[in-house]
Amino acid sequence: MSILVVGSVFFDSIETPHGKVDRALGGAATYFSVAASFFAPVRMVATVGEDFPSEEMDFLKKRGIDVSGVQVRPGRTGFWAGRYHEDMNQRDTLDLQLNVFADFRPQLPASHRDAHYVFLANIDPKLQAMVLDQLAAPGVVGCDTMNHWITGSRAELEKLLKRIGILVINDEEARLLSGERNVVRAARRLLAMGPERVLIKRGEYGVIQFSANSVFAVPAFPLEEVFDPTGAGDVFAGGFMGELARSGDTSEAGLRRAIVYGSVMASFVVEDFGMARLRRLSDDDIQHRYRQFVSLTDIDGS
Amino acid sequence: MSILVVGSVFFDSIETPHGKVDRALGGAATYFSVAASFFAPVRMVATVGEDFPSEEMDFLKKRGIDVSGVQVRPGRTGFWAGRYHEDMNQRDTLDLQLNVFADFRPQLPASHRDAHYVFLANIDPKLQAMVLDQLAAPGVVGCDTMNHWITGSRAELEKLLKRIGILVINDEEARLLSGERNVVRAARRLLAMGPERVLIKRGEYGVIQFSANSVFAVPAFPLEEVFDPTGAGDVFAGGFMGELARSGDTSEAGLRRAIVYGSVMASFVVEDFGMARLRRLSDDDIQHRYRQFVSLTDIDGS
Repeated sequence: MSILVVGSVFFDSIETPHGKVDRALGGAATYFSVAASFFAPVRMVATVGEDFPSEEMDFLKKRGIDVSGVQVRPGRTGFWAGRYHEDMNQRDTLDLQLNVFADFRPQLPASHRDAHYVFLANIDPKLQAMVLDQLAAPGVVGCDTMNHWITGSRAELEKLLKRIGILVINDEEARLLSGERNVVRAARRLLAMGPERVLIKRGEYGVIQFSANSVFAVPAFPLEEVFDPTGAGDVFAGGFMGELARSGDTSEAGLRRAIVYGSVMASFVVEDFGMARLRRLSDDDIQHRYRQFVSLTDIDGS
Repeated sequence: MSILVVGSVFFDSIETPHGKVDRALGGAATYFSVAASFFAPVRMVATVGEDFPSEEMDFLKKRGIDVSGVQVRPGRTGFWAGRYHEDMNQRDTLDLQLNVFADFRPQLPASHRDAHYVFLANIDPKLQAMVLDQLAAPGVVGCDTMNHWITGSRAELEKLLKRIGILVINDEEARLLSGERNVVRAARRLLAMGPERVLIKRGEYGVIQFSANSVFAVPAFPLEEVFDPTGAGDVFAGGFMGELARSGDTSEAGLRRAIVYGSVMASFVVEDFGMARLRRLSDDDIQHRYRQFVSLTDIDGS
C-alpha cells in the first residue's frame, strides 16, 4: 500500500567536521519520502518555490514518489544552513529562510484522501491536524514533532496526539513533552496522552519502542564515521513507515522489523552528506545491512 | 570452574536524588564477587581493615566466596563518600580515605595460583600485573581500569593490555585510552593494543562488544527508577565473568549470553542502594529478567 507524508522540503547548507555541502536537497518530507520509496509508493504533500530544480523533481518521481500534492508557489524554496560541532549531537543554525514554507497550508488532492498509512512529519501541529481532517479514514498514523511546538503549541499538539497511533520523537523531545527525565516514565506518560506506540530515537544509541505491554530496543548500527547526521530521524521514520506499508503487518513482530528497517535506512543516510548516500543505495545494500543488524543484536547468534 | 578477582573493598556513603545510605559495603572486588557468586565459586583477593564487620565477612562466605585471599590488616577499611547529580551519570566525590587500601599488595594464597578465570578489577595496573605474575596459567583474563590510570600510568597499562583477553571499560575510558571519539574506531584501536575483545559499557544505553570480526550490542534493561548506580559496572563484569566460568563456553554465542547475564545483574543492583538488591536476589529473578532481555531485543519476537 502507498504511504502519505506531509512535511517540509528545504535546501540545506551543511557543515560537519568532515566537510560541507551547499544547497543540498533536504527537509523532513523529502528525507522521509526518499527513504520510504525503497519500500512502498509514496505520496508527498509539501510546498516548494519556483526555484525548485526540475532535476530534483524528476529524482523524486523516479523514486516512485507521487508529487501531485507538492504545491509549487511563487517565491523560493525554504533554506536552512547549519554547522555541526565536533560532537555531532550539537549543531548551530546559521541561517533559516522559511520562504514559501512560511505560509504552507497542506491541501490534499482528491486522489490522496483515501490514505491509510500516513506520516505527519515535523510541522506545526495545526497543519498536521489539517491533513488528518482531509482524510477519509486514516489507519496507521505516525507523527513527529519538535521542541518548538512542544513549548509553543502544546495544546494543539496534545489534541493531535489523541488522533495518532505512533509517536516518533527523539529522547530530548520525549523528556520535554512528558516532563519526565527517565525514558521509561517518559514513554508511559506519552502513551497516556494518546498514541498506542511511542518510538524514542536515541541517536547513536538507537531506538526504543514502548506500547502498553511491550518494550523493544535496537541499537544504532555502529559506524566508523558519521559524515552528516542531517535527516537521520526522518529517514528512520521513512524506512519504518515504508516497511509497515509494504508488509501491512502491524503486529508486534511487524513493527519490530519495521523499526530495524528504519534503523538500516538511518545508518546509510549519515554515511554521506545530505541525500547523497540514498541516491546510490540499492535494495541489496538494505537487505545486507538488515542481516548485519540481526547479527549485531542476536543474543544466541554469532 | 571458579573465578579469581582482585580489587578494592570499601565502605561507601552514597547520596542520590532518591535517598542516601551510610557506610554500605562496596568496592569493585566486592560488587564483582557478589554478582559472580550467583554463577560460580569466587576467590576474592583484596584487603580490609580490622574494622571490617564479621557479619559482612560471613555474608561473603555464605555466597560461596573464598575470602582466604582477603588480607585483614591493621587500620581501617577504605572509605568513599559521593553524591550523584539529578543526571546520575554525574557524581561528586565528597570524601576518599584509602586507609589500608593505600598500600595493598596482592598476595595470592598458593591455592589460588591455578586460577583459569581471572578478573583484574580497577586498581593500579602494576598491582594487576602482580596478580598475573603469580598465576601459573591464567586462561580467560578480564580487566577494568579508569581515567586515573589511563592518564597517570599509561605505560604500565599498555604493557598489561598485551597480557589480557577481555577489556571491560566504559565509553569515556575507551575514548581516553584510544584517543578516538567514535566508539567503533575506539574499539579497533583498543583491540590493536592487545585484548581479543573489548566490552564498552554505555550506562543506560547498554554494552557493545567488539572482537576482530564481530560486533554485539545489547541495550540496558529499561528501568523506571535507578536508585543508585554505584557498582553497576563491577556487577556487570561479575555477571559476565561468572557466567563464562559457569558455562566454560567462550565461543561468540557463549560470550553474548554472558554479556546479557552481566546486563541482567547490573539492572538489579541499581534498583536499590549499595548491595541491597543483590542481598535479596534469587536465581529465579535472574532467569526471569534474562527472558525479559531476550524479549526486549528479539527482532522477530513479541
